[in-house]
Amino acid sequence: MANSPNCDLKSLSPLQLFERVTEQGEKVRALKAGKAPKDEIDAAVRMLLSLKLSYKTTTGQDYQAGLPPKDLVLINNGTTKEEDEDLVDPWNVQTSNAKGVDYDKLIVRFGSSKIDTDLINRIERATGQKPHHFLRRGIFFSHRDMDQVLDAYENKKPFYLYTGRGPSSQAMHVGHLIPFVFTKWLQEVFDVPLVIQLTDDEKYLWKDMTIEKAYEYARENAKDIIACGFDVNKTFIFSDLDYLGTSAGFYKNIVKVQKHVTFNQVKGIFGFTDSDCIGKISFPAIQAAPSFSSSFPQIFNGKENIQCLIPCAIDQDPYFRMTRDVAPRIGQPKPALLHSVFFPALQGAQTKMSASDPNSSIFLTDTPKQIKTKINKHAFSGGRDTIEEHRKYGGNCDVDVSFMYLTFFLEDDDRLEQLKQAYTSGELLTGELKKVLIETMQPLIAAHQERRKQVTDEIVKQFMTPRKLAFEF
Amino acid sequence: MANSPNCDLKSLSPLQLFERVTEQGEKVRALKAGKAPKDEIDAAVRMLLSLKLSYKTTTGQDYQAGLPPKDLVLINNGTTKEEDEDLVDPWNVQTSNAKGVDYDKLIVRFGSSKIDTDLINRIERATGQKPHHFLRRGIFFSHRDMDQVLDAYENKKPFYLYTGRGPSSQAMHVGHLIPFVFTKWLQEVFDVPLVIQLTDDEKYLWKDMTIEKAYEYARENAKDIIACGFDVNKTFIFSDLDYLGTSAGFYKNIVKVQKHVTFNQVKGIFGFTDSDCIGKISFPAIQAAPSFSSSFPQIFNGKENIQCLIPCAIDQDPYFRMTRDVAPRIGQPKPALLHSVFFPALQGAQTKMSASDPNSSIFLTDTPKQIKTKINKHAFSGGRDTIEEHRKYGGNCDVDVSFMYLTFFLEDDDRLEQLKQAYTSGELLTGELKKVLIETMQPLIAAHQERRKQVTDEIVKQFMTPRKLAFEF
Repeated sequence: MANSPNCDLKSLSPLQLFERVTEQGEKVRALKAGKAPKDEIDAAVRMLLSLKLSYKTTTGQDYQAGLPPKDLVLINNGTTKEEDEDLVDPWNVQTSNAKGVDYDKLIVRFGSSKIDTDLINRIERATGQKPHHFLRRGIFFSHRDMDQVLDAYENKKPFYLYTGRGPSSQAMHVGHLIPFVFTKWLQEVFDVPLVIQLTDDEKYLWKDMTIEKAYEYARENAKDIIACGFDVNKTFIFSDLDYLGTSAGFYKNIVKVQKHVTFNQVKGIFGFTDSDCIGKISFPAIQAAPSFSSSFPQIFNGKENIQCLIPCAIDQDPYFRMTRDVAPRIGQPKPALLHSVFFPALQGAQTKMSASDPNSSIFLTDTPKQIKTKINKHAFSGGRDTIEEHRKYGGNCDVDVSFMYLTFFLEDDDRLEQLKQAYTSGELLTGELKKVLIETMQPLIAAHQERRKQVTDEIVKQFMTPRKLAFEF
Repeated sequence: MANSPNCDLKSLSPLQLFERVTEQGEKVRALKAGKAPKDEIDAAVRMLLSLKLSYKTTTGQDYQAGLPPKDLVLINNGTTKEEDEDLVDPWNVQTSNAKGVDYDKLIVRFGSSKIDTDLINRIERATGQKPHHFLRRGIFFSHRDMDQVLDAYENKKPFYLYTGRGPSSQAMHVGHLIPFVFTKWLQEVFDVPLVIQLTDDEKYLWKDMTIEKAYEYARENAKDIIACGFDVNKTFIFSDLDYLGTSAGFYKNIVKVQKHVTFNQVKGIFGFTDSDCIGKISFPAIQAAPSFSSSFPQIFNGKENIQCLIPCAIDQDPYFRMTRDVAPRIGQPKPALLHSVFFPALQGAQTKMSASDPNSSIFLTDTPKQIKTKINKHAFSGGRDTIEEHRKYGGNCDVDVSFMYLTFFLEDDDRLEQLKQAYTSGELLTGELKKVLIETMQPLIAAHQERRKQVTDEIVKQFMTPRKLAFEF
């Protein structure tokens, strides 16, 4: 932190930055050639990546050795993918590492902050509640301005929560629930209102899908979200296709954001091209606008400038980096963020669970038998090839998908630690670990299905009707 | 005129064009520094502007002194300006010809159809009314699919009218009234409903203006439009900023259009660049959507696929070429169009009247004295330099702005023909022709002002409230 490479980069010209990157590249090569200690090389590489990012942010172009900057188009982005870096954007998550994405590197690349023990302790003090295991276990691992949210909260200035879902199909899987489970906890411990955006317009724009189908999925997904247990008096769920036509404030904020973001910027941030439809190009403003309370005049009784906190998976961060860049220019507070890791595919943490690949996913509609079969058949194992070897050398929890899932779903810290010890020592076999996971997930999903059955169309309508929520600001 | 700067520009490379602009800029500076005669400076400035326009049309980028063109993106558009062609797009109208834009050529370039005597006679038969003098005199001169509209109308399948205005300022000038005067006539003779879009969002995006100001201008402009005499039972006027948040259908159609138009397309059609904000880039869909009756569920009682007819000045055609291209792909009928010529500036038909140049415009708020002074002082004359020459050779009605205005505002065909004969023969002097124009316009504008005074906020509210119009489809 003391050695932050960004502290004085802002004042450099593109050419000066180019020279700094070149120098640092030479330094890395020299360290590697001289077989310097690993941590020294790692630090130099981190600095190099950071310099390259600054270069790209300033010039809008990737650094290319030997090619000094010429036509400079200023943009500010952050999704640049360097060689051997993980690919993380709102549409792709891909890494070559079986342990999953390197989240520490992602924090540096995205310029966010790590959720450290101090921050977790502070949340505990502020709420008087034991921190959720998603916090304790680093599942929510990164943030932007959470300390400011807590400063204000401790001074009796409340905030509201905003999260969302792209309703790409009727079938939600267990990974989709992560932000909602955590958001529900935040809502309860802070006692704050919540808005949930269903981006049916986005899915219509990106997929081969009719508007009617996208809206139908939005309403179906709303049932699964409501089944997480949100309080109807504190929660507003909206479909973009619906709400844009009923809100006096939403479109005004959208068009404000759209005025302050250029095509160059969304090209840099999201990788759009000239062949993309103008709907995609302007969509980021629609995901940005709910970060501003004036988008919800009915919900907040016309009150503007209420602080917003967004819990989401980190692949959604590009939208909100853009939002935070625009916010002060349109007289709005920047939203704060809490970022989660991705929920791994059954086949391994190289990609996230995806509803479009049924074998990679445990769906919320799966029967106990399907859950058992999928875990037994597909869950990537960190165990050894034979029982003998496993007993001798032990399993690897860092790459074992069953163990990873248990960190999400098994709340009992002691039990989890016991399982980890037993699996690592070789005492517990892969099949036994899978059995624990199956027995953890079956009742969770059955309970979810039971709650979902109670969610009638009438209840969905209540959640999706714009109305004043039970809070005073 | 013979020295048109555009005559050989097509053959020039972007770099050669760049050099021509640079040279001309230096010439203008030299003339100004040398205190050259005003008309010489003016001519040089006009040439400079025209060269800059050619540069932008060719390269897709604004000319920037000292920055020669490098990365050229060739734009493939409907508005590309060929050799000695007129520049016509929603933001610019420029010709080197004092008679004004060559509308016959524009019809060929835009691929529309001429409104010929057959079509005018057919409109007369269908409505049983004498065609409006804007039709008889070629002021509405071009169309798309008007014959199909008439086919359907004769088979008792009615249509609706859609026109609009960009509320860029409180001050509307007489040229702004042309589409509304004609639309009112169409509404009366065909007895059909009308929607009028006020693109306050567009003006917010394009101008240095707050959302509040743009909305205020929209409401003020609505008063001038209502003062044209529209029937509140048949007419819905809407501000985009307002209506987008109150319509269940409008946004759905916008997003449908946005899905079917790429950035490449709007770049080609409208000349947008990568530095333009994403609001501008997606805006064309917002002007397109009112062409579909499903954007107005309240107005048309949920009836979809009603044929739309759009009377507008021809510079708006690019929006509707795009709309007509998209319509069949989203299952909607193509809107038909009736195109008008531009209303010339007082200084001559090389440009259209512009509210941002007060000397070029007669405003709807002008006093009789202001009208008289402006016409006498600024209206470009087709008369001769001396009375003797004028008597001998006669005046030129083709370039005389006073005569042009009379073709718009003097309804009496016989009187207009007499004036033309008298002016052309030299019998009528410029001052006398201007007097006729002044005496024609003063009572028209006074009457408009009188009607505008009657337009209360309550009446504006009635027009702007979404409600079922008095028609059955």
